[in-house]
This record gives sequence, C-alpha cells and structure tokens, in this order.
Amino acid sequence: MSLPVSRRSAVTPFQVMDILDRVAVLRAEGRDVISLCAGEPSGGAPSLVSAAAAQLHDSARPLTYTSALGTHELRREVAGHYRRWYGIDVDPARVAITTGSSGGFVLAFLAAFDAGDRVALARPGYPAYRNILAALGCEVVDIDCGPEVRYQPTPELLEAAHRQAPLAGLVLASPANPTGTMVDRAELTAITQWCAENGVRLVSDEIYHGVTYPAPGAPDPRGVSAWELDDAAVVVSSFSKYWGMTGWRLGWLLLPEELVRPVDALAGNVALCPPAPAQYAAVAAFAEESYRECEAAVEEFARTRRLLLDNAARLGWGEAAPADGAFYYYADLGSQLDRFGSSAAYASALLEEAGVAVTPGIDFDERHGARCVRLSFAAGSTAIAEAIDRIEAFQAR
Amino acid sequence: MSLPVSRRSAVTPFQVMDILDRVAVLRAEGRDVISLCAGEPSGGAPSLVSAAAAQLHDSARPLTYTSALGTHELRREVAGHYRRWYGIDVDPARVAITTGSSGGFVLAFLAAFDAGDRVALARPGYPAYRNILAALGCEVVDIDCGPEVRYQPTPELLEAAHRQAPLAGLVLASPANPTGTMVDRAELTAITQWCAENGVRLVSDEIYHGVTYPAPGAPDPRGVSAWELDDAAVVVSSFSKYWGMTGWRLGWLLLPEELVRPVDALAGNVALCPPAPAQYAAVAAFAEESYRECEAAVEEFARTRRLLLDNAARLGWGEAAPADGAFYYYADLGSQLDRFGSSAAYASALLEEAGVAVTPGIDFDERHGARCVRLSFAAGSTAIAEAIDRIEAFQAR
Repeated sequence: MSLPVSRRSAVTPFQVMDILDRVAVLRAEGRDVISLCAGEPSGGAPSLVSAAAAQLHDSARPLTYTSALGTHELRREVAGHYRRWYGIDVDPARVAITTGSSGGFVLAFLAAFDAGDRVALARPGYPAYRNILAALGCEVVDIDCGPEVRYQPTPELLEAAHRQAPLAGLVLASPANPTGTMVDRAELTAITQWCAENGVRLVSDEIYHGVTYPAPGAPDPRGVSAWELDDAAVVVSSFSKYWGMTGWRLGWLLLPEELVRPVDALAGNVALCPPAPAQYAAVAAFAEESYRECEAAVEEFARTRRLLLDNAARLGWGEAAPADGAFYYYADLGSQLDRFGSSAAYASALLEEAGVAVTPGIDFDERHGARCVRLSFAAGSTAIAEAIDRIEAFQAR
Repeated sequence: MSLPVSRRSAVTPFQVMDILDRVAVLRAEGRDVISLCAGEPSGGAPSLVSAAAAQLHDSARPLTYTSALGTHELRREVAGHYRRWYGIDVDPARVAITTGSSGGFVLAFLAAFDAGDRVALARPGYPAYRNILAALGCEVVDIDCGPEVRYQPTPELLEAAHRQAPLAGLVLASPANPTGTMVDRAELTAITQWCAENGVRLVSDEIYHGVTYPAPGAPDPRGVSAWELDDAAVVVSSFSKYWGMTGWRLGWLLLPEELVRPVDALAGNVALCPPAPAQYAAVAAFAEESYRECEAAVEEFARTRRLLLDNAARLGWGEAAPADGAFYYYADLGSQLDRFGSSAAYASALLEEAGVAVTPGIDFDERHGARCVRLSFAAGSTAIAEAIDRIEAFQAR
C-alpha cells in the first residue's frame, strides 16, 4: 500500500514534454526531425558570458552561497539595464536575482498572494503561471482573450472578473507566450491604472523584452516595462530569451518596496540563493559586445519570422496571432481540424509522418487550444523553410 | 497606499543573515573577523568538476533546458553512487536532480503533502524545513528533542504527536543541522517501521552523508540511507556538503514510485530544470579522483573537530551535542548566559569585541535556542584554533 500523493501535485502534464520525448526517440532511430516545440534560442549565451564562466571555473575559486537576493554586483548591473533600455532609475536594493524566471514567479506569488487569493491570467497563456498558482493554493481566474483583443486582457475584461469576486492579482505577459502579442504603452497604462484603482497586484512578465519586431521608428521598440508606469508592480525577467541562457537558470524580479524583505526571507528558505557561477558570469551580459551579439540573434529571429509570415498561406492553417515579439507562431488549424479532429492528433501525425514537431495548443488554453498549434521559430530560417515544405507536402497527401 | 503582502511570507528572518551582513561591514572597515557562521566547506568543488565546467564553457556549447528531472547521465551516476556507498540498486528513473536540496524540499513537500497536513520536525532543526512547509500551508509539528534523545525523534515521541492529531509526514535529518547527531541503523529502522505502520511519509535529509566522524571499524561509516530500509521514503541529498559545491545549487531526490510523475510535472512548472552547466559538470563528481579529494576534505574537518573537542573546556560553555557528522558544534552557553542574557546578545558581543562570528541558536529552536550557539568548523583548524583563543580571552575580560 503506497502513501498518498498530494492533491495539489495533480497538475496537467505538458503535451510538449511528451512530444520532446518522442522527438528524442525518433532521432535515436535515425529519423531526421525538425523540432519546433521548445522556446529556446539555439545560439547560446553571449561570448563574454561563456568566457567569464570558463575563467571562473579555471580559477577553481570556491563557489559558495551568495546573498539570497543575489550578488550586489549583478543587482547593480540589472538596475543599469533599466536605465539603458527604459530610461528609468531602479534602486539595486529592489532587484532580486532569481533561479530563472520560474524561481522568480514562485517567490513573487508566495510573497504577494495567500492561499485562496484570486489571480487573473489571460487564456491562452503560459501554463506554468496557472500550475504554480494552483500548487500554492491560489484560485486561478481565466480571462478569455481572443483575437479581438489580441489575446491580451483589457480593463473591461478585468472589471467583469473582479465584479464576480475581487481579484488580488493579475499576471500579464508582453510579449506573451504562446501568441507573441504585446500591449503598447497606452494599453499598459490603462491596465496599471485599473490595477491601482482596484487594489490588484500586477505581476508583469517581461522575459521576452528585446525579442521584438517593431516597425521602423516605432515607440518602445523593446516593450514597455510596467515599472515605467507604476512600481507597485512586480516585474519578472530573465537571462533566458534575449541573452539565450535558458539552461543557466537565472532571472530577476523588480520588487515593490514592501515585498523586498518578504522575498528576501522567502528566498533564503526556498532557494538559499540563485546559482553562483551563473551570477558571476552574467555580469558580462551587460557589456556592449554582449548586447551587440544579442541584437544580431534577434535580427535572425526577425528574418525567420518574416519568412514564416511570407509563407503562411502555404501552411493552410487558420487565424494566427500577430507575433509582435517572442519567437512563436500560434495559429488556429482551420480546415486541417476537419481531417485530424484536434491539434494534438494533428501534431502527432505531423511528427510521425513528416518529422516536424510542433506543440498542441491545449498546453496554453484548456478551452480553445484543441484548435491551435504553437510553432517556435527560434530554430532559425533554414529549419523553418524546410518545415514549411514538409508541412505543405504532409497536408497535400 | 501599498498593496498587501501575503501572510505566509511572514517567515522568521534568519539571525545568521544579520550576522553575515555585520561580518561584511566589519571586514570592510578593516577588522579581522573569523566567520564561523555559515555551513560552507571552504575547499570548493572537486578539481575534475571545475575542469569539466571550464571546458563546457570554453566550448561555447549552448546550454539549453534539460529534462525537468535532470539529465539521464547524471541520474545514472547518482544511482551508481548508491551502489557504491550503500550497496543498493536504485533505478535512475526514480532519481530526480534538483536545484540544490532546497529545490528538492519544495518539490517533495508539494508532491507529498497538501495544505493543512501535519508534518513533524525535530526541534532544534534546520529552519528552512519549517519555513518552506509553512509557506506551502502545512502545519509544522515540533518534536522537542533534547540531549536525552541526542536531538533526534524516537517512535515514542512521534507516537505522542500522532495521537494528538494524525501526522502526514516526518522530516528527519541525519547528520542533523545544527547538532550533527546521527541516527544509527537500529534507530532508523524503528522510525521507518513506525512511519510505515502509521501511514506517515518519511522525508530523509541525507545531505551531510559522508561528512561523518565514525570510530574505526564502526558500521555504516557514512550514514544509513532511508532507502536501505524502505523506499517509501523520499531521500533528499545534495552536492553542496561532501562535494563542497554549495553555490552551484545542485541536489537530488530519490522518489517513491508514486511520486515520480507528480514531481516531474511539478518540477517542469516551478523550476523547468536544474542548472544545466552544473548538471553536466557534476558527472565528474563521481570519479575516483573526486571521491579521494572529498575524503581528504572530510579528514581536515575531522582534525578540526578533534581540535575543537580537545579544547572545548576552554570555551567555558555548557552541554554540547556529540557531532557525529556535519561540521557544527551546537552548545548550551552555560554560565555565559548569566552575563549576556541570551545567545543573541552573546553572539553580538563576541563579534563586536573579539571578531568571532557564531550563530545564535534561536535560528534552530524557537523554544530553547536562546541558550545556545552554533559554531561551524568548516572553516578549518587554523581558524578554529585562533577562534578558541579569542573566545577564551573575550570571556576572561
């Protein structure tokens, strides 16, 4: 007789993990698979960061615990990044370095919300928000955000949810995953004002900032930070996307004054500190040369996105999100659904028969996701060009 | 008007963090401070691990996400470690690599316990157990464990707590922090049997295994693993102590069959994966040469412990724990309390006047800790010899 498993660990498994496992099996069998599942830049960390890490380990310096909120040096560098990109002064004492944005979300949710608190999320959205909040006992309030609102919540939609029962928080992502849509300065201003007026804590996921595709001369080309408007928000960011450091597990939070001490105390218990070698090396992420390398990577994402949009008709799918940022193409499957029934069945057949791995939308939207797929174009233009050929041929069978 | 802070983030701040901050300030002022606060081996990682990490970063290989439970290679190596040290077969599929033991505790507690579940802990004990459990909504049940039971819970003590209201879990640490006491095979057998009979999940903290001071020819010189007796337990371990890799943030869990999928799903949400560079490098921790280096480090801890015990009378303190393992000396202050009132006041005066930093016991025991201090001898014999001289002189004033 085995002992009980907690009810709260019954989180929905990710389809993408099953797909990734199947990709590994097929590749081990010698199949040529193009994997467009995962949201991972293939270029890796900036050269100076890798070099700093190599030197650190060569020196065999003991890598002991840092302060729970991270090294003072890295916190200062992150603050400097806000001056550079957004023109705002951030006190380094309000920067918390975290173990990826994942570690940041856990700390932010623990510090800002109690069990039973209602926290709103856009649907479709990144599934870990929902699953972390649920594991921590919060009530997830889905805000259905369709193409008519570009998959982003509006004050009107928030007001409707808040009237049913008061919200304690809102998690907003711009650029969003899986849709890539962004809120502009006016929209974010309206949302922060609505939050302030209604006592709702905004948690602003800005991990895709900088991975953006603005029109020439557009305002706020890298995204608008919530802290440009209201420092009552918790900003969540990461070295994973713009700096291409997914596996290093390093991110940060910008914290409202009243959350600094709670997050410090919680971090010392649930994490002790973020990974020390990554912290020392990541200081080099803010060097001019590193920014130049990252911009070059974003230019390649932009070329790949252009290629994909120019050939979208060949996919024969339905409506897609505009993808202002991030590196995803999230689309309704349109008439392909008549043949396959669901995006999960479509994705499985596409992988088995044509060797192209995409993610079924059910990971991002329990309600409408069975109609959609997410395709990551972080793999680059060669992979995407070949994938489009294969998808076209697959659907023509 | 600021937004609310969660009630659950009101965790007790660690005194040790304040002491560490003060040490940094005093050192910046040019004071010569001996810091015996933190439980950190000063030698750092095995040479082969540092070399593997340096090579990894030199190759500029992109370090992307691994599987949520860690790389298969490292999971196999951890399983092999159990064959080597304990003579037991562990299925690598039941090894979960985690972001330090801290990340392991969060996952284990989430997967095994629901909000409201009663989980027993020895008092004195490591404060993060209590604070993580409380943040996750569990009820912490303190088991007062004095010197008469060598600071470890017994079936009788557990039975008494269980009769008040059923326990869902027990966190056991052997060697323990702050006392360094261990349970032997007979004691651990009695505890695992009691847990099995009463449907209580054992979480066995074995992070100090191998950092032990057995008499020559003693059985189980590195500690007894709960999995030698019952694989319904969750075993928590780490690269931090025996392998000296605190800042790398890498640990592991051994999981009962029914917790593997829940921990996998939870880990993919709350952490994505443990730090990838540390995972690749840590494979080298299990090479013969690495074990040899670690054994040499343990021998130095043993010499330092011997020095401390041989000079304990000069400290003029009261009763101390036997310190079978780990690298702490946890003692009642005895007659020094008459002069200073509390261990916090004593620790503060000792730091300011004599430049020796120790940790007040209140971090480990809310009830009796005001009488005690914890001194870490991981700093080595030179530091300890000088510290004893200073403490003796300080108390003679």
